[in-house]
Amino acid sequence: MDADLDLLARRRLETTSQIHRAALDLFEAQGLRETTVQQIAQRAGISSRTFFRYFPVKEGAAFPVQGRLLASLGAVALDADASDLGAVLSAFADALDSAIQDAGDPDRHEHRRIAQLLAREPELETYVGAQDAEISAAVRARIGEARPDVDGLDAQVVGAVVAALWRVTWDRWGAEALAERAGEPVDVFRDARAAFSRTLG
Amino acid sequence: MDADLDLLARRRLETTSQIHRAALDLFEAQGLRETTVQQIAQRAGISSRTFFRYFPVKEGAAFPVQGRLLASLGAVALDADASDLGAVLSAFADALDSAIQDAGDPDRHEHRRIAQLLAREPELETYVGAQDAEISAAVRARIGEARPDVDGLDAQVVGAVVAALWRVTWDRWGAEALAERAGEPVDVFRDARAAFSRTLG
Repeated sequence: MDADLDLLARRRLETTSQIHRAALDLFEAQGLRETTVQQIAQRAGISSRTFFRYFPVKEGAAFPVQGRLLASLGAVALDADASDLGAVLSAFADALDSAIQDAGDPDRHEHRRIAQLLAREPELETYVGAQDAEISAAVRARIGEARPDVDGLDAQVVGAVVAALWRVTWDRWGAEALAERAGEPVDVFRDARAAFSRTLG
Repeated sequence: MDADLDLLARRRLETTSQIHRAALDLFEAQGLRETTVQQIAQRAGISSRTFFRYFPVKEGAAFPVQGRLLASLGAVALDADASDLGAVLSAFADALDSAIQDAGDPDRHEHRRIAQLLAREPELETYVGAQDAEISAAVRARIGEARPDVDGLDAQVVGAVVAALWRVTWDRWGAEALAERAGEPVDVFRDARAAFSRTLG
């Protein structure tokens, strides 16, 4: 049973990755605007219908990590021991840390391609803004669910800070990647996290 | 000479406001997608060419405060006395506080219309995401200019936090406005600012 589930999860990851690579290839070769979902699906060897089970819009296929990230933020453990807001924020930052490590090595080259694409396609930047809103909403929802005692405004602020932390990490990593001097994404994340503490601590 | 400049600035503000009201009227009546720059310009009694001197795209006309906000963030005084990052952040937060107060009473009704429009037109949300990036970039540029001693990553983080603070304020004010219980925007801002301190202090 577990083995079956593993197999399913593995297949899902493989399909995600196929769609992602097909989308990147096409976005790079012919631009975002000229690329259709149908073209991406065809190149990935799936139907358009299957595509939409993985990504709501074509732009989403450029960022395959987003779905996993949202899932991990939505599962963060927040017990009553996380007594102050700083501890609540830390729990989400730890989840980001893990998510970035999981994205890991095999995707590194892909990240560089995404950074290049972002630099060339301003419309994708707009899409990244919408991702921030998703991250923020996921954090807020998780706090509301696991810690209903936390004030709504405070939950909203934690969500906004987590989204900002994620954004700063990838902006910076992207800039470094374009300059051909990008290190480990997780190191960039940890630097950014330390800078947030310096700014607001 | 000063009187002439005042007159120019006043005219500019009046034109901004005319364009904004025309855009809101049309977005409300026929939707964002169906509304063209030409229609907005015509309703505001100007040429399309003049429109583009005020706003880069039609969506921008829904948010007339953005230009003033960016200008005020770009002019923040940052002397060497602002010795830690918290003080740098405070200087920008003070500028937001003033900008929100300046937007003041006459615009309150407009803000409610914008909140309603945002709830109805998801595409505008995406545009709001792009505004966050503009705010963040303006803060970063100002720090680079006035305080070249501040580390680049730290400047980026201050920018991200200022943008997040602005976003939380308007999200919250918008939600309150839709529920017909919105108070002073500046009060919402100050609550949000306090929540940021609680989260990260």
